[in-house]
Amino acid sequence: MGQSIVRLAAQEGFSIVGAIASPQSPHLGRDIGEVAGAGTLGVALSADVAAGLLGADVVIDFSRPEALNRVLTAARRQKIAVVSGTTRLDADTEKKLDEVSTTIPVLWAPNTSLGVQVLAEIVAEAVRRLGPGFDVEIVETHHKAKVDSPSGTATRLADAVRDARKGLRTVTGREGNVGPRAADEIGIFAVRGGDVIGDHTVHILGPGERLELTHRATNRDLFARGALRAARYLFGKPAGRYSMADVLG
Amino acid sequence: MGQSIVRLAAQEGFSIVGAIASPQSPHLGRDIGEVAGAGTLGVALSADVAAGLLGADVVIDFSRPEALNRVLTAARRQKIAVVSGTTRLDADTEKKLDEVSTTIPVLWAPNTSLGVQVLAEIVAEAVRRLGPGFDVEIVETHHKAKVDSPSGTATRLADAVRDARKGLRTVTGREGNVGPRAADEIGIFAVRGGDVIGDHTVHILGPGERLELTHRATNRDLFARGALRAARYLFGKPAGRYSMADVLG
Amino acid sequence: MGQSIVRLAAQEGFSIVGAIASPQSPHLGRDIGEVAGAGTLGVALSADVAAGLLGADVVIDFSRPEALNRVLTAARRQKIAVVSGTTRLDADTEKKLDEVSTTIPVLWAPNTSLGVQVLAEIVAEAVRRLGPGFDVEIVETHHKAKVDSPSGTATRLADAVRDARKGLRTVTGREGNVGPRAADEIGIFAVRGGDVIGDHTVHILGPGERLELTHRATNRDLFARGALRAARYLFGKPAGRYSMADVLG
Amino acid sequence: MGQSIVRLAAQEGFSIVGAIASPQSPHLGRDIGEVAGAGTLGVALSADVAAGLLGADVVIDFSRPEALNRVLTAARRQKIAVVSGTTRLDADTEKKLDEVSTTIPVLWAPNTSLGVQVLAEIVAEAVRRLGPGFDVEIVETHHKAKVDSPSGTATRLADAVRDARKGLRTVTGREGNVGPRAADEIGIFAVRGGDVIGDHTVHILGPGERLELTHRATNRDLFARGALRAARYLFGKPAGRYSMADVLG
Repeated sequence: MGQSIVRLAAQEGFSIVGAIASPQSPHLGRDIGEVAGAGTLGVALSADVAAGLLGADVVIDFSRPEALNRVLTAARRQKIAVVSGTTRLDADTEKKLDEVSTTIPVLWAPNTSLGVQVLAEIVAEAVRRLGPGFDVEIVETHHKAKVDSPSGTATRLADAVRDARKGLRTVTGREGNVGPRAADEIGIFAVRGGDVIGDHTVHILGPGERLELTHRATNRDLFARGALRAARYLFGKPAGRYSMADVLG
Repeated sequence: MGQSIVRLAAQEGFSIVGAIASPQSPHLGRDIGEVAGAGTLGVALSADVAAGLLGADVVIDFSRPEALNRVLTAARRQKIAVVSGTTRLDADTEKKLDEVSTTIPVLWAPNTSLGVQVLAEIVAEAVRRLGPGFDVEIVETHHKAKVDSPSGTATRLADAVRDARKGLRTVTGREGNVGPRAADEIGIFAVRGGDVIGDHTVHILGPGERLELTHRATNRDLFARGALRAARYLFGKPAGRYSMADVLG
Repeated sequence: MGQSIVRLAAQEGFSIVGAIASPQSPHLGRDIGEVAGAGTLGVALSADVAAGLLGADVVIDFSRPEALNRVLTAARRQKIAVVSGTTRLDADTEKKLDEVSTTIPVLWAPNTSLGVQVLAEIVAEAVRRLGPGFDVEIVETHHKAKVDSPSGTATRLADAVRDARKGLRTVTGREGNVGPRAADEIGIFAVRGGDVIGDHTVHILGPGERLELTHRATNRDLFARGALRAARYLFGKPAGRYSMADVLG
Repeated sequence: MGQSIVRLAAQEGFSIVGAIASPQSPHLGRDIGEVAGAGTLGVALSADVAAGLLGADVVIDFSRPEALNRVLTAARRQKIAVVSGTTRLDADTEKKLDEVSTTIPVLWAPNTSLGVQVLAEIVAEAVRRLGPGFDVEIVETHHKAKVDSPSGTATRLADAVRDARKGLRTVTGREGNVGPRAADEIGIFAVRGGDVIGDHTVHILGPGERLELTHRATNRDLFARGALRAARYLFGKPAGRYSMADVLG
């Protein structure tokens, strides 16, 4: 992901002033452009968070919760906006996002794809408009190496459905004589196989008709692309919490 | 379509006070419930528009432009709300809809499906949010007996896209060395075969990701169902033009 | 289902000589054509299996295992071919099918759709050709009233996959930190909602590419249609067990 | 494509003994592993076809018809098997493939994907089995820069359909009052947008049911992967013409 961001940022005319990796990275000290296959950029990869941020307007973070914590501390001190796509945050890090957002602009998104954001919005709208006579089910497909099910994005889409219709409970499999579907169910199914980057379909099934609203990721760059669009949006904004919904038109 | 409406209206507890068919109908004079396989309803099928409307709150019309004209005239005189799903209106009938709507509530929709209405709305929203970096193409599938292409619903979805992004022109086929896709194209393709009632997919294709937003009609009743929901909505409303968008939540 | 068969059989020029229903049927004694909305056929609905079969060349059975048993006994005695689409057979009825097939031609199919038969065949072929580098998963969608999961057809498709690749085990849901997909898994997921007649998709997912092989039932008549094609095929055939695979070209 | 082949061949344990590019390539003389991002392989990129082939068992060619001609001449002289994925061959090159195949094993495929080969096979089988009551239509989707429509793969799928059912003619768009679908039509529609690598769906639409048979390319490597599997298959085979169908199990 870091390499995608560097490569696309260079292509799109961003000025890259620092690059941070974990102390275990085999690439520490190397030119980040060369690591990313984007030519020499004159910026060495560093494990020092504070030094890496020096002079930046925005930092883009795809790391782990503990590293994000350090990034947030340093960014607040240096008054640098933060875009983060780090997933599986614990409650402490969630809280820290709120705290630092009183000082700097912060955008955290578990999925920085523009299309997923739009899908979540229109799914909620469709569920609201069509009303309780329509049932909702979600099917997601990912590569065979994915270890967790259902995907974070599927969970987020289910949350969007639940915001639009209260009281739904999740079902992740059906087997045997389970009886008719209960009205408060929302099925979420995790298909796994091959090297699929990530497909999500929300089915909205009613009397005589149905909607199937699908997002397909066709290229891993899309998350980097969304993060860069978020970074450009965040530049110059006042302190506060922002979301991908704000970034879109 | 008339039979579906009678059958579903009876099931949903509507009181049916009249039924009108063309003077050529072989069923004139028969009980409309028996024609529709809904039991005896005590209402005979008539070719007399004014008599057929007597005592109604709302009339549901799926006919032809010239018959709709007569329905509008009679409904205005008797102060009866009109729901019409008649397609291929000429300019005169369009004008008449506006005229009578100063006296009575009028809802005209080329497709009374709730799902198609919602699809048109969310397609427009998605195109607007994602911006000009995403290309839009529409594929529709209908049974082999359908004579016109693309479908009226596909055209309506294309109109929704064009409301959200100006200056697009329609392409209905691509063959040979046509060169790269122009940014102002919107492809609309008509697949034909079997007895498909009607599927529509709007593709929104961008860098690294894509949305596929699909509506499937699984039962011809859905148009009758939408018309009945519209009728219930229109009851008691003030004079004016209404749309399926108003009927939804 | 009985009504579909009567209506289509009449349309396709079959001669209907008897019609059997359960002793509880409210239609006993009525003309079967009138019950089915196919005009008067001069055949009364009966609860007497042996009498109902008199003079038939082929009997089409969509009933329950215990009724099928009685049909098989009577058909063997009268030397009438049997087409059966009755599902959830117990071991005794399975055995009886084999026994009577030494005397009469018998075709039993859990799904008499031609398309499902073809899908099962080409899925097996594709899995065999592509080899173990490709993962297989099945997603089926049915209406919200369906009580059992996964569908009999999905199970049959999984069996076709297992014939082509030995040692696979079924997974019907994935939730939590389940780890990477095991090579011997075959996921089968049951989506439920609306009034979907029945969709089945077999995903075959490999490195850099995937196949999605889908069957959609668009009309309940398709099972009746397949049974009639099977009946026509079975006429005049020698005693033995037959399958939908034999019926196809 | 050349870079994908080098990278995957190195990963899969092939021994790379030569690499040929056009005289205009800016990389001539460089180590082919370094050009492909696969580490140093000790093989310099050359414009000399005969020298580049020295010592090879199989040559993999993705070039242009005129270059393929030179490759065939040199491979025949040196008795080296040829796998070629070069498209848009003229009649002379087609003839040359036949000529050299009397001396060496030759496999030419317009699409070296395993999945496309399997799709073509099972489409033909399904069309044959289901018979003339089913209509066939093809929809393909590619990125917005693709200049020709429909895709070579869609054309090949249509050819597979025409082998299974004679007398079909191609329709690439439908617009206006075209009347009911003729029984001898096969629609092929080219959707264009975003950066889609290549999706193909064959619709087989009949009374009450339909099949949708889809191939999705999720990664450009799949063509290189198929070519390498073909190369491994061709090693040690007698002279003759081979196809991807032979490579599969």
